[in-house]
Amino acid sequence: MYFDTNEKQKILIIGGNVSGLAAASQARRNAPNADITVLESGNYISYGTCGLPYYISGIIDDINKLFVYTPEFFEKERKINIKLNHKVIEINPLKKEIIVEVQTNKEHLIFNYDKLIICSGAISFDLGFEVSKLKNVFFFRNVEDTLALKDFINNYNPKKAVIIGGGSIGLLMAEALFKIGIKVTVIEKAKKIFNEYEDEISTILYKKLVLEGIELILEAELTSSSSNDSGLVKTITYMKDSSLNTLETDLVILSAGIKANTDFCKGTSIELGKNGAIKVSPKLQTSYSNIFAAGDCACVKNLVTGKYDFIPTANNAAKTGRIAGDNATGGDVVFAGSVGTKVDQIFGLEIAKTGIAFKEAQELQFDVLKITESYSSHAKAMPGAQVITVTLIFDKKTRKILGAQMIGKEGVAKRIDVFATAITNQMSIDDVYMLDLSYSPGTSTVWDPVNKICGQAILNLSKIKF
Amino acid sequence: MYFDTNEKQKILIIGGNVSGLAAASQARRNAPNADITVLESGNYISYGTCGLPYYISGIIDDINKLFVYTPEFFEKERKINIKLNHKVIEINPLKKEIIVEVQTNKEHLIFNYDKLIICSGAISFDLGFEVSKLKNVFFFRNVEDTLALKDFINNYNPKKAVIIGGGSIGLLMAEALFKIGIKVTVIEKAKKIFNEYEDEISTILYKKLVLEGIELILEAELTSSSSNDSGLVKTITYMKDSSLNTLETDLVILSAGIKANTDFCKGTSIELGKNGAIKVSPKLQTSYSNIFAAGDCACVKNLVTGKYDFIPTANNAAKTGRIAGDNATGGDVVFAGSVGTKVDQIFGLEIAKTGIAFKEAQELQFDVLKITESYSSHAKAMPGAQVITVTLIFDKKTRKILGAQMIGKEGVAKRIDVFATAITNQMSIDDVYMLDLSYSPGTSTVWDPVNKICGQAILNLSKIKF
Repeated sequence: MYFDTNEKQKILIIGGNVSGLAAASQARRNAPNADITVLESGNYISYGTCGLPYYISGIIDDINKLFVYTPEFFEKERKINIKLNHKVIEINPLKKEIIVEVQTNKEHLIFNYDKLIICSGAISFDLGFEVSKLKNVFFFRNVEDTLALKDFINNYNPKKAVIIGGGSIGLLMAEALFKIGIKVTVIEKAKKIFNEYEDEISTILYKKLVLEGIELILEAELTSSSSNDSGLVKTITYMKDSSLNTLETDLVILSAGIKANTDFCKGTSIELGKNGAIKVSPKLQTSYSNIFAAGDCACVKNLVTGKYDFIPTANNAAKTGRIAGDNATGGDVVFAGSVGTKVDQIFGLEIAKTGIAFKEAQELQFDVLKITESYSSHAKAMPGAQVITVTLIFDKKTRKILGAQMIGKEGVAKRIDVFATAITNQMSIDDVYMLDLSYSPGTSTVWDPVNKICGQAILNLSKIKF
Repeated sequence: MYFDTNEKQKILIIGGNVSGLAAASQARRNAPNADITVLESGNYISYGTCGLPYYISGIIDDINKLFVYTPEFFEKERKINIKLNHKVIEINPLKKEIIVEVQTNKEHLIFNYDKLIICSGAISFDLGFEVSKLKNVFFFRNVEDTLALKDFINNYNPKKAVIIGGGSIGLLMAEALFKIGIKVTVIEKAKKIFNEYEDEISTILYKKLVLEGIELILEAELTSSSSNDSGLVKTITYMKDSSLNTLETDLVILSAGIKANTDFCKGTSIELGKNGAIKVSPKLQTSYSNIFAAGDCACVKNLVTGKYDFIPTANNAAKTGRIAGDNATGGDVVFAGSVGTKVDQIFGLEIAKTGIAFKEAQELQFDVLKITESYSSHAKAMPGAQVITVTLIFDKKTRKILGAQMIGKEGVAKRIDVFATAITNQMSIDDVYMLDLSYSPGTSTVWDPVNKICGQAILNLSKIKF
């Protein structure tokens, strides 16, 4: 810890969720006397975004369970000012000030800073919908979205929902709505759901969703919608196989991807990268040395490719937030990067990935091979063993593992973490084949699936003539 | 693969379980024409030793479920000769022959070899009991032991059992016997059960066992036993706090440690190490270049200490067996070593470890620190979150992780595997704090417990004056 005890510098943080609060808290640890203020555009801070769908389904019965800390906790315990409903609309890096629009009264305020940390997160694409004017079209990114959707469901009792976009949020919402009795149709532009996964993995999830009763329409592009006088969208029209089709609906969820929430950076020299994410140095500095960025709004170094990428996960948000807060208060910490590890639980399946996908590896000129195998999650003799399907993406020449993906009813999330650790350390298929992983009949097989898929990779390579 | 197609060499393998069959199978892959014979002292091959307690408790209802492959499979599919009840009693490395006593008729046979792979496993200490003459005293290492115990239980309906030794086997058997209605007392010589675990971890298991109703007597040394005319041990006497105590019992399990099953190496130049385990080179060769050893009977290189150690786990057995089979047939593979990863499930708790213990680290002159924290296995808002207690052992100067141990109702086994992978790669607390581990509310917290304990370690170090 650095303890800038001599300074009473002003530290402003834009965004009051995972990365922003991690930044604020770390700044406070380092700089006991600094004036630290968090500007949050919404009415809530410190919540588990990934938990929101479970409030819709009722698995989490009280929205308050999703809040990790209260504003009062930060104000009293950590002496961090929390300004709710303070939406940043402009940054002036030369004057070291930002302009905020208070959402409750539309008043404009100016805040000065010595150090600014941008943790403004990501927002969903609106696909041309005027969401604010429509009563039954929802984003699903924050507590406000969630409460509004819950209210709508309670008041309007919708029977049918159309979800536009079959990624994590779309499919988590498909399950949540399905579980409360709503018929769900998912429209996906791409050839498959969960587009970031290999076909071998996403197909298993696809079949499960169909089996459960979710309607999935792939390669379908939204063309229009019609709403009635009450501001309710009643039909969604999409193009598929060169023909137009119309779906009736009571409810629409927009989950066709997200982009960094960085519009307020326009007009500054803050450079933006992929999906509008702020370009950062290894120390998470932007184009201005006193402005840092972290979380979903910032680019993250991909440890496999060495390039900066848009990898909006909570795990990255927490880590980069903390480091940005550290470096803004005298720290000198480099964020090594991310291997893009993520997991979702959908209809009882864990689906997880780490590293890069096959296509990306090809594009980056890796000499890539992909194999897929299914294994038992633990000794078959023991009750409850489940099938785990694993796809391994590796380089034939260097034999290094580039990516791994898995799906199954149990034992997936933490096995992906083993691969994440292996990829972080640039381990080869040979190294991981011999990794000393734990065994007991109820938790694994003698050769863990992680070992086995690497053994299979070695075997496959031994049959290939170079 | 090497394909020694020109040779019809004779490969003998002593032992027909995990490592022996892995060796035989790999030898067959490499050398299609070799004459491969497995000599197994018992009547069974290819079974899950770790699954045997679950047959006693009835969780596994059919012993046949524990067999992975049959002798016929090996003979027909892999052209590997399986000789059951063939107990090796002598090796003559100079003549390249071994003497076997056939257990069914006590006949002595001589087998010749070009390459010998010793995979004879480990045996329990008999603690002075003449087990073969006593009807109610059992080892618990193999199928024979298991069937004999099951038979005894069915025929004699024992009410009380004394288990001597509170390690993995002892405690797994305590649970198995308890679950079928037998009152269980465990006598342990050391100050704690699960002696290889830190107090912070083993205490949690101790409390759970007591809560369930297992009687645990620590720091108690077996002094004598008395048996009746029917060959049934009726009392066990032990010394505790300088006084003698006697327990009545209907059944005794001997689980006070194991040693390598290598008595037949006496008189040869095959060097033995700790617990009688055979000393091997990195390529798993013994003192004779044409004799290999693998599995529980062989020393294994500890990746943390660099020293050869006795680490009898199924995971090591499978890997070393395969490599020994490889190198016996033209391969040139080094076994990098083990980090001593293991896990057990006892009364609904997963208890797992990897790397070295605090005391061992001290003895090896590491500048060691140990911390213990408890975390939630996944987001508390979601149902089913459990407490996981983690102990981290690390070097204060190099900041490298030396060992990790965990206990909890879920999410322990695979998190230990993350630490195993980290330790294999000599990662520091700083590296693992920033590891990109997967998050979803039902599988983890945003900072995984693996990250968190390393964050705590960093925080603790920042407070220490060097």
